[in-house]
Amino acid sequence: VAEAVNQPEQPQMRSSEEFDLIASIRERLGSQPGERARVGIGDDAAVTVPGGATATTIDAIVEGVHFRSSWCPPRAVGERAMATALSDLAAMGAEPGEAYVWLGRPEWLDRESCLALCDGLAVVAREAGVAVLGGDLTASPALAVCVTAVGHAEREGELVGRAGARPGDAICLSGSIGGAGAGLLALSSPELVAGVPEELRAPAIARLLAPRPRLELGRALARAGASAMIDVSDGLGADAEHLAAASEVGIEIDLGLAPLGAGVEAIAAAAGRDPLELAAGAGDDYELLCAIPPGRVEVARRAAAEVGIALTEVGRCEKGSEAVRLNRPGGGVVAPGGHDHLRG
Amino acid sequence: VAEAVNQPEQPQMRSSEEFDLIASIRERLGSQPGERARVGIGDDAAVTVPGGATATTIDAIVEGVHFRSSWCPPRAVGERAMATALSDLAAMGAEPGEAYVWLGRPEWLDRESCLALCDGLAVVAREAGVAVLGGDLTASPALAVCVTAVGHAEREGELVGRAGARPGDAICLSGSIGGAGAGLLALSSPELVAGVPEELRAPAIARLLAPRPRLELGRALARAGASAMIDVSDGLGADAEHLAAASEVGIEIDLGLAPLGAGVEAIAAAAGRDPLELAAGAGDDYELLCAIPPGRVEVARRAAAEVGIALTEVGRCEKGSEAVRLNRPGGGVVAPGGHDHLRG
Repeated sequence: VAEAVNQPEQPQMRSSEEFDLIASIRERLGSQPGERARVGIGDDAAVTVPGGATATTIDAIVEGVHFRSSWCPPRAVGERAMATALSDLAAMGAEPGEAYVWLGRPEWLDRESCLALCDGLAVVAREAGVAVLGGDLTASPALAVCVTAVGHAEREGELVGRAGARPGDAICLSGSIGGAGAGLLALSSPELVAGVPEELRAPAIARLLAPRPRLELGRALARAGASAMIDVSDGLGADAEHLAAASEVGIEIDLGLAPLGAGVEAIAAAAGRDPLELAAGAGDDYELLCAIPPGRVEVARRAAAEVGIALTEVGRCEKGSEAVRLNRPGGGVVAPGGHDHLRG
Repeated sequence: VAEAVNQPEQPQMRSSEEFDLIASIRERLGSQPGERARVGIGDDAAVTVPGGATATTIDAIVEGVHFRSSWCPPRAVGERAMATALSDLAAMGAEPGEAYVWLGRPEWLDRESCLALCDGLAVVAREAGVAVLGGDLTASPALAVCVTAVGHAEREGELVGRAGARPGDAICLSGSIGGAGAGLLALSSPELVAGVPEELRAPAIARLLAPRPRLELGRALARAGASAMIDVSDGLGADAEHLAAASEVGIEIDLGLAPLGAGVEAIAAAAGRDPLELAAGAGDDYELLCAIPPGRVEVARRAAAEVGIALTEVGRCEKGSEAVRLNRPGGGVVAPGGHDHLRG
C-alpha cells in the first residue's frame, strides 16, 4: 500500500517479506475498481474524476484508545475503521466513492493479522461499493488505522449537513441503539454477563465488532428531505448535542421511544447498569439521527422502510438554547453525555 | 478538529479545555478558505466541488519511526507531516487543493505543543494555498499525524504518474539532495559534527525540519512534458527504483552530477560518512526526480529556472531490466538503497 516507510529515524529497507505483504494487501484492498478512479494504489497519488460535489472525512482508530486487542481481533479493527469513516458519508447522504487508508503496524502484528485487518477494511468497503485507491503502511508503536473516505453527490445541495434543523422539525433515529455499548460491556467484563444467554450477547458483540454504515439509508433520508443529519458515533446524547449546536436549536428526545438493540436490556441488567443511560451514552452504533420537517416524516419513514431499516420519531427540535434533553419514560432525564458513566 | 474522540474503550467527555483546544486548532487550520470548498471543518464531512481530475494521497508520520521528539519539535512535526503529503501532489504535477488531518495526541503533548504542531501544518498549507477542510483529534499512545491531501488538474492527462518513462528519456533532479540526511546526522549525533561550522549545519537541519514541497515546480515540469515523476522522499536510489519499476525501464544515474545540499560534504566528512552514499540513500529532501523526453530537457530546465529552482540532468532511462545504477564519479557504484547504511 505504501511507498513511504523508509524514513531516516529508523531507516529500513523494505525486505522481500514486506514487499510481499504489500502486494497481498493491494490484492485485498485494490480489487474494487471505482467508477471515478483512473489511477489507484501504487503511484504518488490516486487519480479520480469526481464531478459534482464531494464529501470528504478523515477518521482514525487507535489501540488502547478506541479498542483493545484483547477483545478486538484484527479483522474487526479493519471493519470498524472503515465503517467509522463511511458512516460520516452516510450522515451526509453522500454516495460512497473512494477510501484512502493509513495502517500503523506495531511489531506484534504479524503478516496474517495484518491481512486479516485488511480483509476487514475490504469487506466493509466492498459492501459499500467503495474503491480503496491509496494507502500508506508504516511501523508504529501502537496499532492505528486512519481512513479518509470520499463520497459524492450530483449537486452540493443534495448533501445534508448538521446545521439545517429548524424548530418544529421531528428528530428521527434509525434502527436501534445501545447494542455496541452492551457488546463492549460483554467483552470487557465477561464475568458480569456470564449469565446472559449467548443469543442475547452475540448480537450486541456483533454490533460492536462488525458495524455497518447506513449508506443507503443516508441517501434515502437526504432525498426524503432531512434538514440535518449526523451519525450516532459518540452516543445519542452527545451527537444530538452536536446537531443542536450546529443548527442552533434545542432538542428534546423521549428515550422511551428509542428502540434498544438486541441484548441491551439483558446485558445492562446483568452488569447493574441502567439500560437507558447505556443506550444514550455509548457510541459506536452508527445509526443515523436526523431532523425532518414535520410534513416529511411519513415520507422519510417509508423511504427508510424501503431500504429495510426502521426510522423512529424520538423527539423534536425547539427554539432556543441548543440544549439537549433526554427524557426518561417515567419522568426524569438522562444526562446527554452518558458516556462519562462508562468511565467509573 | 474532531468529533470522534469519544469512544467506549476510554470514554471521555470532552472537557472545556479540550473544546477550547479544538476551537484554537480550527482557528489555526481553518483559515484558508479553499476555492472549491463549500463546507469545511465541523460537519460530518467537508464538501467540495472539485471538477476536472483530482490527485489524492495519504501519508503519516509517527514518533519513534519517522522522528524523535528529542530532535523534532512539534512545529517541525507539523511542517513535515504536511510537506510529506503535499510533496506527493507535487510529484503528480497537481495544483494543491485541500488537506484533511488526523492528529494522534499523546498525553505528554500539552496544549502549547499541540498548537505549535498545528502552526507547522498551517504554515506549509498556507504557503501552498491548501485549505485544511477536516480533521480528527484523538488520544494516541505515540504522537502521530496523518494527512490526506487532494490536488487538482483540469484534465486527467495533465497529471504525471510514475509509469510513463521511456528508454532514452533523460533523468532530471531538482535542487540538491543529502541535506535532510545530513541534518539528521547533525541532530542525532551532535558530538560527531561539533566541529562543523554553524553556517553549514543550519541549512542541513532546516532542510530536515522545515521541508517544502516543490509544488510550483511539479506543475511546471508537468507542463514542460515530463513523462514520469516522483518525489525523493525515500532517497534518490530508492525512488529511482520506484520510478524504474513502474515505468519498466532501467535507470542509470551519475552521482557526480547530482548537486549536494549545503553542509552535506562537511557533515559527512565529520561523521566519517561517504557523502555520495549519504546523499543517495537518505530520504526527506522532497526534491522531484523526473523522466523527460530528450527534446524537452531544455524546455523543462527553463521552466524550472522560472520558478527559481535548478533542474539537473543526472542520468537516463534505458531499455531493460528495471535496475537502477548509481555511478560514482571515479568509477564504482553506490547501492540504490543507501538508506540501509544509516542503520548501523
